[in-house]
Amino acid sequence: MLNDILDNSHNYQPGLSIDCVIFGFHDNQLKVLLIKVNQNNKWSLPGGFIPINEDIDTAAVTVLNQRTGVEGVFLRQFGAFGNVKRNEHHFDKKVFKSLKIDPEKGKWLTQRFVTLGYYALVDFLKTIPNSGQYETAEWIDHKEVPELILDHKEILDKALDTLRTELNLMPVGYNLLPEKFTIPELQKLYETILDRKLDRRNFFRKITNIGILVKLDEKKNNVAHKAPYLYSFDKEKYDEVLKNGLNQGW
Amino acid sequence: MLNDILDNSHNYQPGLSIDCVIFGFHDNQLKVLLIKVNQNNKWSLPGGFIPINEDIDTAAVTVLNQRTGVEGVFLRQFGAFGNVKRNEHHFDKKVFKSLKIDPEKGKWLTQRFVTLGYYALVDFLKTIPNSGQYETAEWIDHKEVPELILDHKEILDKALDTLRTELNLMPVGYNLLPEKFTIPELQKLYETILDRKLDRRNFFRKITNIGILVKLDEKKNNVAHKAPYLYSFDKEKYDEVLKNGLNQGW
Repeated sequence: MLNDILDNSHNYQPGLSIDCVIFGFHDNQLKVLLIKVNQNNKWSLPGGFIPINEDIDTAAVTVLNQRTGVEGVFLRQFGAFGNVKRNEHHFDKKVFKSLKIDPEKGKWLTQRFVTLGYYALVDFLKTIPNSGQYETAEWIDHKEVPELILDHKEILDKALDTLRTELNLMPVGYNLLPEKFTIPELQKLYETILDRKLDRRNFFRKITNIGILVKLDEKKNNVAHKAPYLYSFDKEKYDEVLKNGLNQGW
Repeated sequence: MLNDILDNSHNYQPGLSIDCVIFGFHDNQLKVLLIKVNQNNKWSLPGGFIPINEDIDTAAVTVLNQRTGVEGVFLRQFGAFGNVKRNEHHFDKKVFKSLKIDPEKGKWLTQRFVTLGYYALVDFLKTIPNSGQYETAEWIDHKEVPELILDHKEILDKALDTLRTELNLMPVGYNLLPEKFTIPELQKLYETILDRKLDRRNFFRKITNIGILVKLDEKKNNVAHKAPYLYSFDKEKYDEVLKNGLNQGW
């Protein structure tokens, strides 16, 4: 695939790439979709290049879709990363040889790439990590992330920071939780993202005050004692708050 | 200056630029520093290109410094703008002729440019808008902004949105206010940014709770009746809150 791009590098925005931090929630873990190049066992964020005839946001949707098969999920640009030496020495003669890349064509890859970071919140159960011929895609707990190439750890950390900050600005949970969930499950999601315990009653009060939850006439099955009620999101109100922001602050 | 860049375009990151939204506060107005090209009376955000041997954040500092003479101020990247047609038709033969640009060299300018948006908060009184030979730099009330070139209005709006959001996440005021200020002056700054009135007592309670203000043993001069106390920022605590965020939310 890289060779295809290099054969047509004039069709891609020079020196600019996209990296996606794709979050999913499962087994009370906040997981990140990572890519391993089979040949060298190096881990990276899923990424791609930007066709010159595509908007940058569209190109990001394409990367996400190729890797996860999901569409229409929450995807947000959170930063550009462009230190001079960020991809210096990443491609050299040895790497070109091992990837069967013509070094002359490969030159395109050795310029400084500024990369645009996007983060996505996807439904873990609906996502099929798309491994390629030469690489493996895998969900990994964000606390167990292995060494990543280039500045990808910095990009991942910035995405996590942004997600934590945005918990104070917008609702989070749609896409990350199943359609029906209990308040303790929603609280667990918030606690996992924030990496700290929250007071049960405070959380209940704050989250219900936002007005995005619908209490269903059903209780959670398979719970021995005092089964908790199930809830779902009122998608219309959810989108409204997503657009206008949580009404906090000044 | 553009001709200098075109003579050495290989020294600049291709297809990537920087645009700065520079805010200052004066006369109870939130002002934006804009540039007018003398020849065609078109207004734009101050911007520039990125030398291939410079980090993107460093290039942004250079743009800001060239335009305002200020250093060490709050400068933050807030987004990348890269629609396919964003700078289509911006440069054509006619424009090249009027700017005395060799059309062959000028081609470099006609590729799609993705631009990185940075916003800055600067001290209005310490800032000397730097007009160039062919252009004028001017402070303009953000409510009176004239038509801007390309997608610069969208970039400005996004910067304003970001600034408003960040009022809920971090302290704002250092750089924008004089060293000594009254609480009503600080409140006016917040009201101007948010574009709405705030309750006086609520504001006082919230702003003093953050713990970044130092009450001085001085009162404001030239105020007839009940002169208000002057305050300054505790820079150490201010920077701490800037780093860790306002302790709100969950």
